[in-house]
Amino acid sequence: MLGTPSHPMQVPMTVDEPIYLDYAAATPVDEQVLEAMSPYFSQCFANPSASYAPARKARADVEDARTRIAHLMGAKSANIVFTAGATEANNLALAAVAPDAHVIASAIEHESVRACVMAREAGTLLPVSAEGLVSAEALARAIRPDTELVSIALANGEIGTIQPLRELSHVIADERKRRLAAGETRPIYLHTDASQAAALRTLNVSSLGADLVTVSAAKMHGPKQVGLLWARSGIELRPLVCGGGQESGLRSGTENVAGIMGFARAFEIARDLREDESKRLRELRNWLQGCLADAFADAVVTGPVRDAQRLDNLLHISFPGLLARRLVISLDQQGVYVGTGSACAASKMTVSPVLEAVGATPATCEGSLRITLGRETTREQVERAACIIIETVNAERQRVGGC
Amino acid sequence: MLGTPSHPMQVPMTVDEPIYLDYAAATPVDEQVLEAMSPYFSQCFANPSASYAPARKARADVEDARTRIAHLMGAKSANIVFTAGATEANNLALAAVAPDAHVIASAIEHESVRACVMAREAGTLLPVSAEGLVSAEALARAIRPDTELVSIALANGEIGTIQPLRELSHVIADERKRRLAAGETRPIYLHTDASQAAALRTLNVSSLGADLVTVSAAKMHGPKQVGLLWARSGIELRPLVCGGGQESGLRSGTENVAGIMGFARAFEIARDLREDESKRLRELRNWLQGCLADAFADAVVTGPVRDAQRLDNLLHISFPGLLARRLVISLDQQGVYVGTGSACAASKMTVSPVLEAVGATPATCEGSLRITLGRETTREQVERAACIIIETVNAERQRVGGC
Repeated sequence: MLGTPSHPMQVPMTVDEPIYLDYAAATPVDEQVLEAMSPYFSQCFANPSASYAPARKARADVEDARTRIAHLMGAKSANIVFTAGATEANNLALAAVAPDAHVIASAIEHESVRACVMAREAGTLLPVSAEGLVSAEALARAIRPDTELVSIALANGEIGTIQPLRELSHVIADERKRRLAAGETRPIYLHTDASQAAALRTLNVSSLGADLVTVSAAKMHGPKQVGLLWARSGIELRPLVCGGGQESGLRSGTENVAGIMGFARAFEIARDLREDESKRLRELRNWLQGCLADAFADAVVTGPVRDAQRLDNLLHISFPGLLARRLVISLDQQGVYVGTGSACAASKMTVSPVLEAVGATPATCEGSLRITLGRETTREQVERAACIIIETVNAERQRVGGC
Repeated sequence: MLGTPSHPMQVPMTVDEPIYLDYAAATPVDEQVLEAMSPYFSQCFANPSASYAPARKARADVEDARTRIAHLMGAKSANIVFTAGATEANNLALAAVAPDAHVIASAIEHESVRACVMAREAGTLLPVSAEGLVSAEALARAIRPDTELVSIALANGEIGTIQPLRELSHVIADERKRRLAAGETRPIYLHTDASQAAALRTLNVSSLGADLVTVSAAKMHGPKQVGLLWARSGIELRPLVCGGGQESGLRSGTENVAGIMGFARAFEIARDLREDESKRLRELRNWLQGCLADAFADAVVTGPVRDAQRLDNLLHISFPGLLARRLVISLDQQGVYVGTGSACAASKMTVSPVLEAVGATPATCEGSLRITLGRETTREQVERAACIIIETVNAERQRVGGC
């Protein structure tokens, strides 16, 4: 049983294993996933494009993996392109529309989407609410006659906001109807980067309502730099990497067979565990949040208030007056690994565009930790982490106050 | 000892392990490489962009791998960009120059270079000799005032031609001098895809004389979809994939840490074995070639005659009047795995542009096998393969003759 939020200190403090609480940045490859990958390094290593038996087996296995993933997404396997990671998949999605077409993304999209929008001739970053939510009305207003793509991540990796994608897809559908009635032939698509949500939410493409979906293996206990883009039938993708014509000409280069096999296994495991893990992690996260909020009345939690609109494993919490960078270092020294904003933005030491977009105060931005739980996270770890975080914040406040 | 070419049939025919002779298409991951990779899947799995201890270790290990590889190439580590494979590295090299600049590639480049050249506004495919060699004179004539990039693979993966890169680099240097004297500011670079040569030739960038070099891990017993592009200081690359800014902004996306660690180990092993393996495989290849040439007077070997101009492990041989596709199927059934042209082209069942460029007759094209030996290839395997190939060609000739 979890201790009550007000008594976390009852947990004995021992020199224990480190506590990893940055699952949004990276997940360990599951043992079963590694097992699924391992034959494809040194044994079934043939090039799937060759024609002899082991090569045909490699090809068949890659296609089987595609079919299994397609099944899990309620999609056609022919509509799945394997890519070298989610960033590449997002770039591929954004490249699907004409270079001069207008695109829209939320102001809290991942850098891989933001960078592509910013590099285009015409792009709009859509403001979000204080909880990070995109409103259907704001989207409807932002759509122009030349808008061809709207990119809204299913879940935000920094503050955990889960977008009302189906509602947003209706806005796109309405605009399609309008164009059809007006005799306009320009298409309009909804893309969603589902990477951060992949381990905890359904990725059924009909449920999502999107026309293009990015998934990352690395965020669901699969290998790094393995991802996919699903695109509805009829959407013509433009390859970023040309050559031998693999992936129906959309991603040339010999397939990462081991990575793809691992991806499929990781996807299946995530699906099997999803329901239980969502519930378990939500409880742990809510306990941790309560615990820290009780300890620090001025702590600020960023992201949606309602559980249904939040990633179950994520807590974004700020301790105004402190510097997250110093907190992270101190926690690191005590074996507690948490993030400050997204890992990518963190390495650049810039203010997070996500926090800026939700209108966080400078103090909130500076003192914010992103804590993300995952499959290996135990109750004991969370209780121990709570103790250490409380002690660390207290110590840091004393230090700052004493200056 | 090898049997003499005229007595290959003395080797006993048993139901043995299959014989893999398509190392140009794929290589098995070396056990030591896999060992170097394995901690990075489930243990050291942290995102190198995060800031806590395990993440810093992942970052340090990636940078250590880069330094080790740079050392092996006689290069600066800051000039190495890790990519998701050689195809991506080639695309990145070709994207380095202005979209409207003229580029030149040999007519026998890999599809990943050819496709990029063909997609550009101004590109020239340079004819080659019957041995597949690019001549310095032809290159000099093809260079235009607006030429910014010349891409010539160190070794051709289909017929094994090793280009006189240093000589070609002098042509580029001369053009640079001319432009400098004329006050022209347009740069001109030499890119070489060294993927196929990586296991058997030096990749020292000074020795090569190129300004940009592509290397593939997958062709040197490392993992698939891991590669690099080295670019001389001062060359400004343009990223194909944007986002979190990894690889100095040139290849965004969380690094494939395991893959990079494996790449470095594979590179080191290849360097250690290079000299011995080149000699050993050259002898085996030459024995096989002699054996098949003795058995079939009309067999045609394509590629350079001189060993010094040929990849040591490659034999491209045609049996006019036969269909390579049928031969490969029959050899496959007997457990001998060989290629027809490059695996990429083979899967598309089109005439190989390489064979077209060297002026091979239709009969030579249709009946050609690409046999590539590698690290696991033994003398016994080559002798046994020779027997099986001779039997198969004879059987196929009888079948065709009997029609």
